[in-house]
Amino acid sequence: MSCSFGKKFRLTVFGQSHSKAIGAVIDGIPAGVRLDEEKIKALLSRRAPGKNAYSTKRREADEYEILSGTVDGMTCGAPLCAVIYNTDARSGDYEKLKTLPRPSHSDYAAYIKHHGFNDVRGGGNFSGRMTAPLCFAGAVAMQILESRGIYIGAHIKSIAGIEDRAFSPVDVSAAELENVKKKDFPVLDDEAGERMKAEIEKARAELDSVGGVIECAVTGLPAGIGEPMFDGVENVVSRAVFAVPAVKGIEFGLGFASSELRGSENNDPFTVSDGRVLTETNNSGGILGGITSGMPVIFRAAVKPTPSVGIEQGTVNLETNSPARLVTGGRHDPCIVPRAVPCIEAAAALAIINLM
Amino acid sequence: MSCSFGKKFRLTVFGQSHSKAIGAVIDGIPAGVRLDEEKIKALLSRRAPGKNAYSTKRREADEYEILSGTVDGMTCGAPLCAVIYNTDARSGDYEKLKTLPRPSHSDYAAYIKHHGFNDVRGGGNFSGRMTAPLCFAGAVAMQILESRGIYIGAHIKSIAGIEDRAFSPVDVSAAELENVKKKDFPVLDDEAGERMKAEIEKARAELDSVGGVIECAVTGLPAGIGEPMFDGVENVVSRAVFAVPAVKGIEFGLGFASSELRGSENNDPFTVSDGRVLTETNNSGGILGGITSGMPVIFRAAVKPTPSVGIEQGTVNLETNSPARLVTGGRHDPCIVPRAVPCIEAAAALAIINLM
Amino acid sequence: MSCSFGKKFRLTVFGQSHSKAIGAVIDGIPAGVRLDEEKIKALLSRRAPGKNAYSTKRREADEYEILSGTVDGMTCGAPLCAVIYNTDARSGDYEKLKTLPRPSHSDYAAYIKHHGFNDVRGGGNFSGRMTAPLCFAGAVAMQILESRGIYIGAHIKSIAGIEDRAFSPVDVSAAELENVKKKDFPVLDDEAGERMKAEIEKARAELDSVGGVIECAVTGLPAGIGEPMFDGVENVVSRAVFAVPAVKGIEFGLGFASSELRGSENNDPFTVSDGRVLTETNNSGGILGGITSGMPVIFRAAVKPTPSVGIEQGTVNLETNSPARLVTGGRHDPCIVPRAVPCIEAAAALAIINLM
Amino acid sequence: MSCSFGKKFRLTVFGQSHSKAIGAVIDGIPAGVRLDEEKIKALLSRRAPGKNAYSTKRREADEYEILSGTVDGMTCGAPLCAVIYNTDARSGDYEKLKTLPRPSHSDYAAYIKHHGFNDVRGGGNFSGRMTAPLCFAGAVAMQILESRGIYIGAHIKSIAGIEDRAFSPVDVSAAELENVKKKDFPVLDDEAGERMKAEIEKARAELDSVGGVIECAVTGLPAGIGEPMFDGVENVVSRAVFAVPAVKGIEFGLGFASSELRGSENNDPFTVSDGRVLTETNNSGGILGGITSGMPVIFRAAVKPTPSVGIEQGTVNLETNSPARLVTGGRHDPCIVPRAVPCIEAAAALAIINLM
Repeated sequence: MSCSFGKKFRLTVFGQSHSKAIGAVIDGIPAGVRLDEEKIKALLSRRAPGKNAYSTKRREADEYEILSGTVDGMTCGAPLCAVIYNTDARSGDYEKLKTLPRPSHSDYAAYIKHHGFNDVRGGGNFSGRMTAPLCFAGAVAMQILESRGIYIGAHIKSIAGIEDRAFSPVDVSAAELENVKKKDFPVLDDEAGERMKAEIEKARAELDSVGGVIECAVTGLPAGIGEPMFDGVENVVSRAVFAVPAVKGIEFGLGFASSELRGSENNDPFTVSDGRVLTETNNSGGILGGITSGMPVIFRAAVKPTPSVGIEQGTVNLETNSPARLVTGGRHDPCIVPRAVPCIEAAAALAIINLM
Repeated sequence: MSCSFGKKFRLTVFGQSHSKAIGAVIDGIPAGVRLDEEKIKALLSRRAPGKNAYSTKRREADEYEILSGTVDGMTCGAPLCAVIYNTDARSGDYEKLKTLPRPSHSDYAAYIKHHGFNDVRGGGNFSGRMTAPLCFAGAVAMQILESRGIYIGAHIKSIAGIEDRAFSPVDVSAAELENVKKKDFPVLDDEAGERMKAEIEKARAELDSVGGVIECAVTGLPAGIGEPMFDGVENVVSRAVFAVPAVKGIEFGLGFASSELRGSENNDPFTVSDGRVLTETNNSGGILGGITSGMPVIFRAAVKPTPSVGIEQGTVNLETNSPARLVTGGRHDPCIVPRAVPCIEAAAALAIINLM
Repeated sequence: MSCSFGKKFRLTVFGQSHSKAIGAVIDGIPAGVRLDEEKIKALLSRRAPGKNAYSTKRREADEYEILSGTVDGMTCGAPLCAVIYNTDARSGDYEKLKTLPRPSHSDYAAYIKHHGFNDVRGGGNFSGRMTAPLCFAGAVAMQILESRGIYIGAHIKSIAGIEDRAFSPVDVSAAELENVKKKDFPVLDDEAGERMKAEIEKARAELDSVGGVIECAVTGLPAGIGEPMFDGVENVVSRAVFAVPAVKGIEFGLGFASSELRGSENNDPFTVSDGRVLTETNNSGGILGGITSGMPVIFRAAVKPTPSVGIEQGTVNLETNSPARLVTGGRHDPCIVPRAVPCIEAAAALAIINLM
Repeated sequence: MSCSFGKKFRLTVFGQSHSKAIGAVIDGIPAGVRLDEEKIKALLSRRAPGKNAYSTKRREADEYEILSGTVDGMTCGAPLCAVIYNTDARSGDYEKLKTLPRPSHSDYAAYIKHHGFNDVRGGGNFSGRMTAPLCFAGAVAMQILESRGIYIGAHIKSIAGIEDRAFSPVDVSAAELENVKKKDFPVLDDEAGERMKAEIEKARAELDSVGGVIECAVTGLPAGIGEPMFDGVENVVSRAVFAVPAVKGIEFGLGFASSELRGSENNDPFTVSDGRVLTETNNSGGILGGITSGMPVIFRAAVKPTPSVGIEQGTVNLETNSPARLVTGGRHDPCIVPRAVPCIEAAAALAIINLM
């Protein structure tokens, strides 16, 4: 396993869904930063389960405790370690997973990789729960980025094909990003949001699940950030974003749509405004040659439907190597997309702070 | 800049479009491997420009010379260094780029990053030419992977929206991958290929360019490969693939399309065949929880249209900070997608060999 | 700060002397290892303070708690996190250190590095206490190494110039290494040990301190381990050993003494014994060209006298930038060498397991 | 093998003694640095063989060619690659080494590591010749450091036990460092140098060799540099210095001698001079807690006697696994210490620039 990311702001994540605790160690935070606990709690709260009808009924406080790295709430240059204790774990729900891997979950791959010694309880260290320490670290990174005028925000771009408006790629504002974060269901077009929620509820009622797309924007980034060939903005952001479980695709700027355009349509002409070099359009998503252009960085991540569904599915019994049937128990989200929104922001923050 | 990738099979790339030479250093190749020069040349040849009507007229032999790492053609455990000399460079074509950055090229971002000291000749180290050492390394990696029964191949999935057939995600074969590599225009459906070529020719005649999508498959991978949370298969493959210039998106398995499905539709039920655990479908693209499932790994990369077009575009004069007009000269591909196919394979090979 | 070491068995250390807890995260332990808690406790106990007359009177249980990485005491492939809570911290002792840095301590350098925000309580994250998580990780590494027939052990080679016997560089045995670990005062020659203890007691009585040299041996290593030019055995072991505070020098084999010999004296002739290639002498310390030779790896680390002494010393007041006098309070070891012995073993284990 | 060092100024070294070329790739040099070729040549020249009676008769121009990374002699932000072609290689001299490993050389260890496929010609990539690219990179690093007021210099501290004066640890000056670099035989006390040379000549006449100690100083370093626990100054410098073949020990400040002192003797009291915080003595070698104190960084490296001697030695025949006798042919240095002096400086420069 590889639980570390970054060189300058190095995050190490540990824990399993049902271990004593999960947590994050961050090395490289400058000394003298007063941690904004409200911001950390706000981000963790947006990720937390059990808040409403369309997420799992598991209730976890997700209250973190800082073990090291601060003196009186101020960073001291030592690695920052925060832990979240696992309290509402019902291990019994998962006993049969040892031999009956859930389709499109990590169970089978982890079983092979770890020779049957993997922790199957709640998905072990493959659980979506591991995004809580990611969000902790992302919130700390965001606080530091914001002190430099850089803001990161995301919204649900679509669920089950129902589309929200897109951020404006040329002039999405920090205020707009902050605004959508405050919503219980983070969409720009609340009417579209209502239709999405209805679709989630329908899937839930049918013991099924739905997926979606998350759009993320980073504003205030200066031009000139990124270390191509292998650590350009796309390389680093994509590596971070695929750490969020269920993400199966990422695109920057127009992304896949640009593959259908002519160069003359897709290119972003330069212009000057108030003495600043800008581009008239931003089909590049704020990235040229792997380096920021000074325009907003825009990307979208595809989230597959939650693989945990209440409908009977085909699996194999790993002890007998014979076909079997499985109905997944436990408490699961019919749609993970809303809770994944702050995770995508956190991954982006982690990537961006390491690029600077 | 960050020109290195990988820990086990560590590639370092150097060079600029018009420097004396470009090259690759590979550390971590086992001693005792006889380099298959035919395979290396074949991959480089598929990437090479000037072969036909739809690629740039620049002619470069792309002949490599091995400076170190072998004794009598056999690796000796020392780092393998190969260089390709730059011979057909016409630097004069690029003089004005210093002050007039080409839209949607790296010029402006590199200018800011390197405070005006960047090498503008031919795009410097942002040039697509830097994929030649990547292909050299990829060919070496592929040779080692093939000795373990692992095959990598890619084809043009679409150009300007014209679609080729897809690889079968459950039973694409090594033979099929080898077969499409032999084609001058690597598509599965040659009739679709003819329509793509016509579209490229049309764009060329109109001094414009087109983009496309490349689909890549990896067969023969055992289950259990991948190091989540941050070095799972998607994390590492995406980081490598975004090193290929013009790639703006990547998706694994069904990718973005899975975001519109129900979980019950998207999940891949397990089954047993000849005692082996398989999945009936492979919407996951051979990756569960960041780890290989034993099914083919399938991904697609979106390639934007070549930003170099012969049509006049808006830019800014970086000396005077005022608007300007630009017609890009030089010799360029109206469609980079066919030449990018082996680059995507090489990036995949580099990622996979480092995951093993 | 840089709190991580290694690629295969990656250790991340966190905590300060007076933070809520200190701890270690280890990524890369194979799944299916039953942690030998007795061995872990034994190593931690050898490092623990307060055991006898010649160490600090601080009493810390150094009891660790495993937060993640195991299921029923068996590793599961997820990162292993263990914490040790700080219980016997008297922060008040250290208040004045903020402005009056202790000579030859990290105080001043940390103050400058962290712009005055460093944690001065007990030396913060520069405290010798941070070797407790190092010892935890070392004990886990040693357990894995021992399962492959590799043993690591160290003894006090000298204190204040009083010399113990040396390990035999050609045939030091695992049994000999285990034997000296059991001693309360780990020397080979107990009579020399008595004289050392008397010298420590004398220094203590005079409010002063003494240093020494630790010799460490690794047996059972196969030939062929090490990754020169930059990750040969000496490179990696030295990098790890200098993580132990107060170490100011390291030498392999004859080390500095070899600089006074002729090549014909220093060279180790090869020989064959029972079909195995050996060297008749082992002045190279088991390392040829940065790679193991199959002979025992032998090195020595120089430990400076504890900088905390009860004698008044010159310092500066960092607020007023004027000369000042300081008598260090707190509870300190008159000789850190005995407690550093297991730390050197742990650092060696961490290095060796990452080289394999 | 592991041929890369550093994160910010990342050096990758390639080549073997008898490969087509050896070379260095450096990633992370800022754009806009005009390479000072005189300084590079001067450092390479001090390392070059064949200059005088006490070094090997091999003559190599060590002329480098820059393949990439510059435009008109100025760095452009792309990786800098320089190669040195191997011209005076007599491979025939080394044929028998394949089966008869030279005592205390890398031959046997490399044979085992690389399963007999290692390049035995001239020691392959274990050759001292690989320090030429290290010196190239070190010279570039030193140029950048000097532009910030940081100077690095070394001298022969002893040969065969004959001692030179030491640098003053508190006030060694940049001028003094530059001065000793100009000497053909770099010692502070030329009379001691004459005795050393006589001792080398005596060893040469007796077909034997001698070793020595090199002392290196870094001046002008600000306080606060270094990333403990694992990337403190000692960790990083030692890792770099052990890349120089034949180095078997390193000590910082008083090093091993401090182990015989009382704390009250070894501690460096702080003082104030012209408003600057200094230490009255510098037994710590300019490093406190792994971080620079602002005083000169001082270390010494022990260099073993050249293992190549003309005297018959015992070895084994690796084909027959039976004892054999060997007289090493080829052209060798009776004392490598003078040529190692610039290599130690280069390793220090590489370490220091990565710490900043």
